Amino acid sequence: MTNRKEGMNYAPKGKPNPVVKENEFIFAAIALEHGHIGGMCSGLIDAGGTIKYVYDPDIQKAEAFAKNFPGIIIAKSEDEVLSDPEVMLVASADITSKRGALGLRVMDAGKDYFTDKAPFTTLEQLEAARQKVQETGRKYMVYYAERIHNECSVYAGDLIEQGAIGRVINVLGLGPHRLSAPARPDWFFQKEHYGGILCDIGSHQVEQFLYYTGAKDAEVTRSQIANYNHPEYPELEDFGDMMLVGDNGATGYFRVDWFTPDGLSSWGDGRTVILGTEGYIELRKNLNITVEDEGNHVFLVDKTGEHHIPVTGKVGFPFFGQLILDCINRTDHAMTQAHAFKAAELCLKAELYAERIE
Amino acid sequence: MTNRKEGMNYAPKGKPNPVVKENEFIFAAIALEHGHIGGMCSGLIDAGGTIKYVYDPDIQKAEAFAKNFPGIIIAKSEDEVLSDPEVMLVASADITSKRGALGLRVMDAGKDYFTDKAPFTTLEQLEAARQKVQETGRKYMVYYAERIHNECSVYAGDLIEQGAIGRVINVLGLGPHRLSAPARPDWFFQKEHYGGILCDIGSHQVEQFLYYTGAKDAEVTRSQIANYNHPEYPELEDFGDMMLVGDNGATGYFRVDWFTPDGLSSWGDGRTVILGTEGYIELRKNLNITVEDEGNHVFLVDKTGEHHIPVTGKVGFPFFGQLILDCINRTDHAMTQAHAFKAAELCLKAELYAERIE
Repeated sequence: MTNRKEGMNYAPKGKPNPVVKENEFIFAAIALEHGHIGGMCSGLIDAGGTIKYVYDPDIQKAEAFAKNFPGIIIAKSEDEVLSDPEVMLVASADITSKRGALGLRVMDAGKDYFTDKAPFTTLEQLEAARQKVQETGRKYMVYYAERIHNECSVYAGDLIEQGAIGRVINVLGLGPHRLSAPARPDWFFQKEHYGGILCDIGSHQVEQFLYYTGAKDAEVTRSQIANYNHPEYPELEDFGDMMLVGDNGATGYFRVDWFTPDGLSSWGDGRTVILGTEGYIELRKNLNITVEDEGNHVFLVDKTGEHHIPVTGKVGFPFFGQLILDCINRTDHAMTQAHAFKAAELCLKAELYAERIE
Repeated sequence: MTNRKEGMNYAPKGKPNPVVKENEFIFAAIALEHGHIGGMCSGLIDAGGTIKYVYDPDIQKAEAFAKNFPGIIIAKSEDEVLSDPEVMLVASADITSKRGALGLRVMDAGKDYFTDKAPFTTLEQLEAARQKVQETGRKYMVYYAERIHNECSVYAGDLIEQGAIGRVINVLGLGPHRLSAPARPDWFFQKEHYGGILCDIGSHQVEQFLYYTGAKDAEVTRSQIANYNHPEYPELEDFGDMMLVGDNGATGYFRVDWFTPDGLSSWGDGRTVILGTEGYIELRKNLNITVEDEGNHVFLVDKTGEHHIPVTGKVGFPFFGQLILDCINRTDHAMTQAHAFKAAELCLKAELYAERIE
């Protein structure tokens, strides 16, 4: 039950697998508005990264963060971090609506940027980032944690690449989350700042659709949002769902919501069902209800039978080491820039054109 | 593994619970084009019904069927059955495109009609049946087996009625089926006759959406069909999915397909996930993959915890007894005529306006 209340502080433990030595990849953390920043930084550190600074306008937040990272410098300003040529990458979990602008400043300072999802709240922010990447050659990478920081999701990608289920024709995702309203900051309930449910937690789902199907682009064919049961937060969307068709003909559907019941032993019973022409995969990401509080359950059904593959501690999180090497070598093995931006674009469009259900 | 290959011959065993004595409710079977007729008749017999006749133009089919029902008369013509005033109801699993016309003849003969799903292949057939019901006062009932003849689906309805998950806001259904192409008749692959995948196996899903949400009507907001991997059957749709919004604001999504892998111990890993404001229910209808070949697994998550409730043999199939009493008393407790027709209408519209994915 360790992750009972920690949906917003998701920081899974992987197996450390350093790809560089100390001080070969120095990074900093700026803006600690979401607990994801912990998982982002520990992922980089497990892969060999060295964290030099933390900065947040709220000094108490910075101090609390610093306790977990011995030797870290609490910077006095954003500029102190951005003007240090040793810093190669800035990790950040700002208020969602401010992530784009911070990224521009980071890239202007000649550094790569690694932001919590969702990376933007408007298409204009996305366009500005696309241009800045073009102009500076820097990276604007995104922490789509529900795939890159979840071992069963990583393993599913490997299975698909090996051809275990043939051609992927449909990806279905359920992304329920526990609201834990009292623990959330005000901006979390202001649409201008969090961007809407499809933009926010929907971004994980769109990213997974593109990744598992291999689609380079997709059309959002229908998207919906609702506030079914939280009139006290009028700008909260407690439900959203959408359909996608990929440029390769694969289809997708996702449902996200803030209705995780108190009785669930995890913050959310996240599922992904990937249907292929030769079999299917079901991921029970965060737990196996009524059986096990621990997550990372892969179920594979193919020609030969039904297989349950628990993968906790067996797969790790290759994204972080790949990202470090990508930053050093200017490659894009962790995630292409086009992929990171396309996922953002589609969830922004889904949100923008969503039908509101009453 | 008993139901390994029997997707098309679905005849679950319930607990017999007769509501009438022998010969108080006499019925007949006409047209045996789909194995579902076995489940339909055994359901009625377990509820006290008495089967008097079987008729099919193919005498061998009628003889094979008769072996399972001692004392049954093999009729020489449809008219022999329809002209017998003792027969109160005709059960039928004709070629889908012929079900509507047979229903009109049955109702014209003053009898109630109980057809396998899908009940129609065109909106014109539906309209003719609506008029005939109006004119004759007879019933045109439908065997939506994946709810009425599946104990966990029945139990989910009871839980919802008791308020176990609050207001139902979303129903999600996965209805994969094994193709078993060599065992299928020619008409199964001809769209004019089977009606398309959303009309055919999609009809179960639409019916469940209306039932679990309590919606009286709904809008099909997006529907899609594809033939991803069966070019040898050009008119087969091996995939379909759709979204619905109910007149009460509840939302739904369903995916149906013919991609059940050979390694699965059932004909299909049917699932239903019902999201409410106070909890959710997952049904694993036909098996619990890698754990149990037997189906009827209800998973309920609410404020108090996670609950696994296996219900095989515990719930039975109240539909059949209710239908018999409805026919005798002219009530509509088993299913209202409006509900049966609305489910048919929505799946026909979903099919008619479906986007074809290439």
